[in-house]
Amino acid sequence: MAHLFTLSELSVTEITQLLEDAEQFGKGYFWRPPKPMFVANLFFEPSTRTKCSFEMAERKLGLHVIPFDADMSSVQKGETLYDTVRTLESIGVNAVVIRHWEDAYFESLRHAIRIPVINAGDGCGHHPTQSLLDLLTIRQEFGTFERLTVAIIGDIRHSRVARSNAEVLTRLGATVLFSSPEEWKDEANPYGTYVDIDTAVAEADVVMLLRIQHERHEEKMGLTKEQYHARYGLTLERAEKMKENSIILHPAPVNRGVEIASELVESERSRIFKQMENGVYVRMAVLKRAIEGGMTNGSYFKKWKVV
Amino acid sequence: MAHLFTLSELSVTEITQLLEDAEQFGKGYFWRPPKPMFVANLFFEPSTRTKCSFEMAERKLGLHVIPFDADMSSVQKGETLYDTVRTLESIGVNAVVIRHWEDAYFESLRHAIRIPVINAGDGCGHHPTQSLLDLLTIRQEFGTFERLTVAIIGDIRHSRVARSNAEVLTRLGATVLFSSPEEWKDEANPYGTYVDIDTAVAEADVVMLLRIQHERHEEKMGLTKEQYHARYGLTLERAEKMKENSIILHPAPVNRGVEIASELVESERSRIFKQMENGVYVRMAVLKRAIEGGMTNGSYFKKWKVV
Amino acid sequence: MAHLFTLSELSVTEITQLLEDAEQFGKGYFWRPPKPMFVANLFFEPSTRTKCSFEMAERKLGLHVIPFDADMSSVQKGETLYDTVRTLESIGVNAVVIRHWEDAYFESLRHAIRIPVINAGDGCGHHPTQSLLDLLTIRQEFGTFERLTVAIIGDIRHSRVARSNAEVLTRLGATVLFSSPEEWKDEANPYGTYVDIDTAVAEADVVMLLRIQHERHEEKMGLTKEQYHARYGLTLERAEKMKENSIILHPAPVNRGVEIASELVESERSRIFKQMENGVYVRMAVLKRAIEGGMTNGSYFKKWKVV
Repeated sequence: MAHLFTLSELSVTEITQLLEDAEQFGKGYFWRPPKPMFVANLFFEPSTRTKCSFEMAERKLGLHVIPFDADMSSVQKGETLYDTVRTLESIGVNAVVIRHWEDAYFESLRHAIRIPVINAGDGCGHHPTQSLLDLLTIRQEFGTFERLTVAIIGDIRHSRVARSNAEVLTRLGATVLFSSPEEWKDEANPYGTYVDIDTAVAEADVVMLLRIQHERHEEKMGLTKEQYHARYGLTLERAEKMKENSIILHPAPVNRGVEIASELVESERSRIFKQMENGVYVRMAVLKRAIEGGMTNGSYFKKWKVV
Repeated sequence: MAHLFTLSELSVTEITQLLEDAEQFGKGYFWRPPKPMFVANLFFEPSTRTKCSFEMAERKLGLHVIPFDADMSSVQKGETLYDTVRTLESIGVNAVVIRHWEDAYFESLRHAIRIPVINAGDGCGHHPTQSLLDLLTIRQEFGTFERLTVAIIGDIRHSRVARSNAEVLTRLGATVLFSSPEEWKDEANPYGTYVDIDTAVAEADVVMLLRIQHERHEEKMGLTKEQYHARYGLTLERAEKMKENSIILHPAPVNRGVEIASELVESERSRIFKQMENGVYVRMAVLKRAIEGGMTNGSYFKKWKVV
Repeated sequence: MAHLFTLSELSVTEITQLLEDAEQFGKGYFWRPPKPMFVANLFFEPSTRTKCSFEMAERKLGLHVIPFDADMSSVQKGETLYDTVRTLESIGVNAVVIRHWEDAYFESLRHAIRIPVINAGDGCGHHPTQSLLDLLTIRQEFGTFERLTVAIIGDIRHSRVARSNAEVLTRLGATVLFSSPEEWKDEANPYGTYVDIDTAVAEADVVMLLRIQHERHEEKMGLTKEQYHARYGLTLERAEKMKENSIILHPAPVNRGVEIASELVESERSRIFKQMENGVYVRMAVLKRAIEGGMTNGSYFKKWKVV
C-alpha cells in the first residue's frame, strides 16, 4: 500500500527518491503503468493549481481520470467519505486523490481502503505534494538543504504548508525561521524560530510566503490590506535586503499587494510559477509510487470477498 | 434505435442477453465500438455511484466522454431537455445517459431523438441499470430467479428501484415481498405482497433494502433514526434470522444505522459493494447494446436534413 | 502566437482559410498536432453548446483536456484571470479557451500570456467562433457572401453575435439589416441599417435571430412573451414572406415561441442545428490555427526564466 498522507510519515530516503523521480519527469522521463489504470480526484474545497496539476500529472502518465464533482455527489445525501471511497474502489478506481476540509480526514481510510489514497490537503493539516514541490524547487536552486535558511512568513497557525514544510525541512538539515503577526503564531509547531519580518527576509536563502486568507482574517487583524502589506508583507523595500541568490516561494494563489508586492511575483528572484511547473512532476512521482507500491485491487475481476 | 428507458419495455430474452454480456465483461471480455464514439452523461440530480459507474463503463469501452455540467449548462437559461439533447446530437454525440428529477422525462425524447438515450433514473419512476445490476448480483449467487423470494424493504412508494425491480423479478419467476411503514406503501405497484419486516427477513433469499431519504421523511414519520431502525430496519438481531445462503442488497448510498445496521454493510451476507462492481459491467452491456442497436447519426458528416 | 479574440483582428484571407479548414474537417479531414497537447476550457458563464462543441473539437483533434471548474477554482479565492491562466501555462497547458462575463477580458492576457487564448465569448463583446460557424453555414448555402442580405433581428445592443457578425459580414461583401425594438438599438454599431421586422424578413437571404434574454428584459419592455413574439418575433405568418431559398439562423439556446415560432426551429428553412454541427468544425480549425501558430511553451521542460 502506498498511501501518501503526510511527509512526516516518509523517511528521508523515500523523500529523496520522490524528488529524484520528479526531477527525471521534469527532464522528460517516460513512465507508464503496466496496464490501464483509473484514478479519481475528490476535491471538497476549491482549488485550481493542485487539482489541475494532478489532472495534468495523471494524463502525462496515461491514467484514465474518472470525474468526481463533490457538489453533485452522494456526499450531498450524507454519505460518509469512507463509503464514497469504498464505492469508487468497488467500481474499479485504482487510486484516489483527496482534498478535504477536515483535518486528518484520512484516518478513517488508512487501514480500511485497499487502494492508495493521496492527500491533496486536509483542513489545516498537511499538504505533502505542496511540500514536495517546494523541496524540489529549493533543491534545483541550491542542490542541497543542508545549511540553508528558510523563512516561512505569514499565517503560520492556519497553514498546512507551514506545518508540512517546517518539519521536513528541519529533518533535511535546513534552519527554519517563522515570521508572523502575534495572532497567527503556532505554539504547536516546534520546527522554527520566530523572528521579525525584516530579520527573516535578510537572513533567508528561501523566503517562503504564505497566502493570507484575508477574506477570513482581515477584520480580525484590524488592518487594511495596505497596512498588512507594509507591516508583514514582502514589500519592494524589503526585497532589496534579500541575500544574493536567495529566492521567493509562494504556494499561490497570491494576493498581490498583500503578502507580496505585485511586481515581485514575476521578478528575478521569484520561483512562484516554477513551483507550479514542479508540482506536476512531483505529483507524477507520487502517483508512480502509489501505483508501484500498492494497486491492490488486482482482485477486481475475482469473486468478491468480505473484508 | 436502442434507447433504454425502463426494463418493462424489454423482453426476458433481451434482459437475459444483457446479463450474459455483463457477466462476460466481468470476466474481462474485451469489446470496442467499430469507430471512435462520443457520449455525454447528463445528471440533473446528485449521484456518485451511477455517474462514476457510467463514466468507468464508458472508458472501459474506449468511448470519448464529453463533460456536461447541468449547473453550468443552458438549462440554466431555460433550454428544454429536448433542445439540449438535440444540441448534443448535432455536435456529434453518439449516445446520452440521463438522470432527471422528472418522472418519465424521456417521453419527450422517445420518438424525436435519433441517438440512443439511456435512462439513469427518472424522478420516482425507473432506474433500469440499477435493476440490471441487482439482477446480475442475484443471478451470480443463485444461478436463477425461479422460486427465489426477494424482499424489498423500506420506502416502496418513492423508490424507482422498487418499481423497476418488482415487475421484472416477478416476470423472471421470483416471488416479491414488500415491507414498509404504512405511509410508504405503494397501492399502484401490484408486483409484491406486503408482510411485516420480521416475516420478510425470515423468508427472503434476497433482502433488498431501500435507502431512507430521512432528510425528507424523518419528521413526517415522527420517528428518530434509532426508532426507525428498531422498527423497520435490518438490525443485527433480525439479520440473525436470515435464511442460510441468503444475501443483503442495497442500492446505496447507505444510511448506516437507519435502514441497516452499520456492521452489516460489509458483513458476509452483504453484496452491497459487489453490486457496485456489477454496475460497471451491466452499464458496459447497456452501452454496447445502444451502440450496436442504433448509432443512427452515421449521417453526421452528410448534408443536414430537416427532420 | 495565434490568439483569437475577435474576428475584426483577422484579415479576409485568414477568415477564408479558417472556413476552408472547417469545411475540410466537416468532410472528415484528419489532422493531429505533432505531439501530445493539453488544453483547458475556462467557462465563467453557463454554456452547453459552445462548451460541449469545444470539448468535441478538442477530442476530435486528439488533444488532452484538463478539466477546469470555475465554481471550484481559486477564482473563488480572488485570484485574477491573469494569474489563473499563467498558472495553467506553468503546469503545461498548451492553449486555453475562455468565456468570461467581462467585456474584453482578454486585454489583460494579450501581451502577457505565451500560450494561445481563444475567446469563447466576452461579456457583451465578441464571440468569434459563433461568427465563424454562422459564416460557414451561410457559405455552404450560397457559396459566397457577395450581394447577400443578412438580417440580424432582436436585441442588437447586448448581443456579441450581432457585434461580431455585422462587421465581418460587411467586410465580406454582404449587406446587413438590423431589426430591433427601439430600446435595443445599438448606436455604436455602424455596420447595419435599421428596418422594421417585416421588411427585414422579406428582404433577407439569411434571417439571423438573436436570443432574447427575456429573464432580464421582459419587464423592462413591458411585453409578455406572446406580445413580443407577435411584434418582433419570426412568426409563422412572417416566415411565409421569406424569400425563396432564404434560411433561418439562431445562435441558440432558442426561446421557442418568443423570438421564433417553435415550429420553425426544425423547419425546412432552419439551419439552427446545422449551425451547431458546423460549430465543431470551425472550432477544430481555430484550434489547429492556435497550435500551428503559437504553441510557444516548447520551453516547458527548460529552465524557468523571468518574463
